[in-house]
Amino acid sequence: MTTYHAALAWVDGVVRQDVTLRCHGDRLSAVDADTQAPPDAQQLAGLVLPGIANAHSHAFHRALRARTHEGAGDFFGWRQRMYAVAGALDPDLYRELAVAVYAEMALAGVTAVGEFHYLHHNLDGRPYDDPNIMGHALASAAAEAGVRLTLLDTCYLRGGFDADLEGPQRRFGDGTPDAWAARASALTDHATLRNGTAIHSVRAVPASAMPTVHALAQQRGAPLHVHASEQPAENSACLHATGRTPTGVLADAGVLGPGTTVVHATHVTDDDVAALGTTGTGVCLCPTTERDLADGIGPASALARAGSRLCVGSDSHAVIDLFEEARAVELDERLATHQRGHHRPEALLEALTTSGQAELGWDVGLRTGALADFVAIDLSSPRTAGATAGTAAASAVFAASACDVTDVVVGGRPLVRGGHHATIDVPARLSGALAAVEEALG
Amino acid sequence: MTTYHAALAWVDGVVRQDVTLRCHGDRLSAVDADTQAPPDAQQLAGLVLPGIANAHSHAFHRALRARTHEGAGDFFGWRQRMYAVAGALDPDLYRELAVAVYAEMALAGVTAVGEFHYLHHNLDGRPYDDPNIMGHALASAAAEAGVRLTLLDTCYLRGGFDADLEGPQRRFGDGTPDAWAARASALTDHATLRNGTAIHSVRAVPASAMPTVHALAQQRGAPLHVHASEQPAENSACLHATGRTPTGVLADAGVLGPGTTVVHATHVTDDDVAALGTTGTGVCLCPTTERDLADGIGPASALARAGSRLCVGSDSHAVIDLFEEARAVELDERLATHQRGHHRPEALLEALTTSGQAELGWDVGLRTGALADFVAIDLSSPRTAGATAGTAAASAVFAASACDVTDVVVGGRPLVRGGHHATIDVPARLSGALAAVEEALG
Repeated sequence: MTTYHAALAWVDGVVRQDVTLRCHGDRLSAVDADTQAPPDAQQLAGLVLPGIANAHSHAFHRALRARTHEGAGDFFGWRQRMYAVAGALDPDLYRELAVAVYAEMALAGVTAVGEFHYLHHNLDGRPYDDPNIMGHALASAAAEAGVRLTLLDTCYLRGGFDADLEGPQRRFGDGTPDAWAARASALTDHATLRNGTAIHSVRAVPASAMPTVHALAQQRGAPLHVHASEQPAENSACLHATGRTPTGVLADAGVLGPGTTVVHATHVTDDDVAALGTTGTGVCLCPTTERDLADGIGPASALARAGSRLCVGSDSHAVIDLFEEARAVELDERLATHQRGHHRPEALLEALTTSGQAELGWDVGLRTGALADFVAIDLSSPRTAGATAGTAAASAVFAASACDVTDVVVGGRPLVRGGHHATIDVPARLSGALAAVEEALG
Repeated sequence: MTTYHAALAWVDGVVRQDVTLRCHGDRLSAVDADTQAPPDAQQLAGLVLPGIANAHSHAFHRALRARTHEGAGDFFGWRQRMYAVAGALDPDLYRELAVAVYAEMALAGVTAVGEFHYLHHNLDGRPYDDPNIMGHALASAAAEAGVRLTLLDTCYLRGGFDADLEGPQRRFGDGTPDAWAARASALTDHATLRNGTAIHSVRAVPASAMPTVHALAQQRGAPLHVHASEQPAENSACLHATGRTPTGVLADAGVLGPGTTVVHATHVTDDDVAALGTTGTGVCLCPTTERDLADGIGPASALARAGSRLCVGSDSHAVIDLFEEARAVELDERLATHQRGHHRPEALLEALTTSGQAELGWDVGLRTGALADFVAIDLSSPRTAGATAGTAAASAVFAASACDVTDVVVGGRPLVRGGHHATIDVPARLSGALAAVEEALG
């Protein structure tokens, strides 16, 4: 049984002082504020938050960071490199890159990642001898990096409403929804791995196939994630092909609901917002990627008001700094509306932590019985210095950076201490993996 | 004579390898690429850039960071606290806060700051015995923090087109343009201090007073900065009062030109863009403040195409991370236009460094004869790992953070080494100063 004592901790939506956190196995057995540090307790300075959830990741996009802005960087160049990397990874290299990326996330305070995984098959599109070898590579990578993984095994069946899979896309496809389900069903959970599901998009999955994905998610009680309305072109293609918005298609197919998370929801109509909110569908915002890809700014506060639980993801990993994602939910909406004050800092902290964890199927929070996953943020860095108990929550959201994470605990055990990963030299691992990707690209 | 040797350095707009930088006094006496490190050279790993310019600062706003989001934070709450802090600072406290804030900037790679300074007079509006005591406090603070200061002594004469100065604003006013000029003329330059000028805004300075400010700037060969078109309300008040846009008023008053920098230029018309560009007027963008204050997104690429030199500032210091400012110039324009690729990474690096320095009146760049001001960025942090000579420029702009600055050299002498300030415990100084501000606020 490990015990921690936090100077400040975010408990039940407020910052409390002198909080003792007792762990039993991988869960919290007691959380008590206004306590003296027990003699055996490990001290955590700064502000302790529940573990950060990175609810939307494409690990392999880390190989695109700072490499898609040549000239000034158009969308075509980005997409070309994305497919080139997607076409170059074998299971070993995919694993190696993912270890490094998940370890980078750990340093940034992420204790659980939702990997939207569709690099299923061989470079030529044929299944590997082990048809889940790529998923296993990710699971093994997350285990080595020490973070929980929700493997959102993604159904991807066509290149467009009226187009077959082409080139590297052939790796993504299982052919039929049943073949997808047969493969995805073979994956098994363990303490730090949840097998969830995903529909890539209304473009890549016909409406007729969606109930198959939904059924597997329901059967498992596992999350279902789906990209929707990231860019206007996607909306018009969908309207043209189906007469419905992407959200409308998902609603008709019966896949919305509290177990489902729509990713982006940038270009949604008022009816879409109502459909997502009234069904209790979660929404994952990825603001730094939405900036990088010129997607635009979605109606996050309207979605929250309508009833959607918000969470955040670093998606393409242009940067991995979930504090930047959380504040961008508010700040980008300010840019779009010319008004301040859409989201309380406490709501953004929930999106960053407990809500994101819930969308990934993990029960995390600083309370008895929850998983003992939490992070400490330095409140005496150049960015956060001067924070008090009263301003600590706002400082975490609006001032902190990934580099202010000092300690990360997963399942009661320290994963990051003093800003260093317990077992991995993260920069060295990243440079090794990225050099290997460049070599594979030729 | 100190000599440095950089693994990579940004010389004449390209990344060069193995660059020897020889300093003589406070200037560079030689810059040579593809050289072996001389035996006496100090090694700089990562990427060396010319010193970063923070071209727009209100030092006292640091006391607002993470303290204006209560509830969710409206503009009125922000303004109320801004005026409360402005009304609470005496010369000692202003100096103490500024030392800490300028030292925070040094850690972020800033070697020169443009302080848009208008807290001139006593709390009740009367001049201090030394009428420049507040400006001297800033000069002394910058000297202690080790960064160059361009003191943009700001003319501020009225509360609005039809309103007197009220409350804390009374500290800002000199009464008449001549009284402003008499006071501002008494300030003297030295090696790390330039005395520049500023017109607060078209709201706060009548057009008839602008030539006085411009004349002093011209006489000194010093910069003139001016806020313009930050928010739509400012535009409509100006149109209503004068029949002209803010840029139109500045053009009519004859104050545009290569020695002038317009700050924000967020809500400018096509005619404004042409007027700024054809006169060679510089533009300072402050994207993280423009996000925080819900200002909106300006037409940065149109301004650059028209002929304006761009630079960046952290303005209200919601965060002090000039890399975030530089990338936001591109990323926020992507959000507004739904297109990637407005600014080349090299152009953003210029805005961050040499262009910003020029707008503050400093001759900085990695070339013989320029001031020996430069910074080293870690290319093996979790954020930048995997960068190569070919991707280093884009990594600096699109992936690096303030916390990736390892070394800062000002005038040939090390100010920051290994991420630590040579003489100041920055977080301790910040918390002390911020606590003192809270106490002064009562």
